[in-house]
Amino acid sequence: MTGLSGARGLLICVSGPSGVGKGTIIREVLRRRANMAHSISVTTRAPRPGEQHGVDYYFTDRQSFLRMLEAGEILEHDIYCDQYYGTPLKPLQKLVAAGTDVLLDITVPGSLAVMQNYPDCVTLCLLPPSLTELKNRLSKRGTETAEAMQKRLTKARDEVKMASSFQYVVVNDNLTETARQIQAIIDAEHCRYARLAGIEETILAH
Amino acid sequence: MTGLSGARGLLICVSGPSGVGKGTIIREVLRRRANMAHSISVTTRAPRPGEQHGVDYYFTDRQSFLRMLEAGEILEHDIYCDQYYGTPLKPLQKLVAAGTDVLLDITVPGSLAVMQNYPDCVTLCLLPPSLTELKNRLSKRGTETAEAMQKRLTKARDEVKMASSFQYVVVNDNLTETARQIQAIIDAEHCRYARLAGIEETILAH
Repeated sequence: MTGLSGARGLLICVSGPSGVGKGTIIREVLRRRANMAHSISVTTRAPRPGEQHGVDYYFTDRQSFLRMLEAGEILEHDIYCDQYYGTPLKPLQKLVAAGTDVLLDITVPGSLAVMQNYPDCVTLCLLPPSLTELKNRLSKRGTETAEAMQKRLTKARDEVKMASSFQYVVVNDNLTETARQIQAIIDAEHCRYARLAGIEETILAH
Repeated sequence: MTGLSGARGLLICVSGPSGVGKGTIIREVLRRRANMAHSISVTTRAPRPGEQHGVDYYFTDRQSFLRMLEAGEILEHDIYCDQYYGTPLKPLQKLVAAGTDVLLDITVPGSLAVMQNYPDCVTLCLLPPSLTELKNRLSKRGTETAEAMQKRLTKARDEVKMASSFQYVVVNDNLTETARQIQAIIDAEHCRYARLAGIEETILAH
């Protein structure tokens, strides 16, 4: 379509409390849409059997990670079990420049860091239909002590309260409906004048 | 769905240059979607044979129109052939309060007035794929002198240039695709946090 072809891809942060179902939803949206990718994290931890560089993670050493961080090549990062995990900027820029939309599965604090470093991103918070339902989803993961579960739930409650920091909120009640709403958000964002500035001149010139 | 049920409807201004196909698109979106209405104008001109009050227009006299205007009950208005035409606020407020989305077929200057008087509205500018295509669409209407046609085209060109005043731009290349994009914009706007403020408390309370 005129003016829309050649448009840049979007970066879409999909966030929300632990247990809300970010991973499942992202896989569903990726399955449904063409010209869509997900961001692959960079980490200093060692690959586990079967994990592939550039598919599951970009594996790197601590020194290289810190160099990337220093150079502003990491959008957001976190430390877990003494290992670094981050969102690398360069692969994302390459995809977006080629017109591919990129989904980012990200924690609530991570999302806030991305908003700072990539103000053009679309931010979306998945919420559970109710706290009771979130408890059910978290407990289905099983294998946790009551104490660990309580800790997780307190954190999740705090994350739900952060919804106001996001542009969009989607209540994840039903996989199909949630995926449909996220697709609508992506389609609508592509139509925002701010992302199409100058389109009127292109149209008037033809 | 939690938090979304009972939500207010949206007012969506569908604007764009003369000849771009606003009326056809609005009819198509209305045909496809449930819980959707279009705004009916109020006018001082006499009903034509077959026209119904409350269906085609709200018919009123000049004195009543001016009283409504004075009372802030008209979102935008225009004078054509010495008759007043306007968008009445009350029927629209009633629909929106009941959760119905309302489409408004409106000129570019009219849209700017609505933005002032109803800042919560969604504004959308339909654009032709090219100036050549707009010329074709305008000339298909036929029955106009070359001079009238030239006047119309100059005005349409100025209207295309106003696209930057709108939140969204949709290139009307294909009826189905354009209707799909407008539906995506409506769905996405319903997910904006600003329209769902407080949803997190509702979720945490259940």
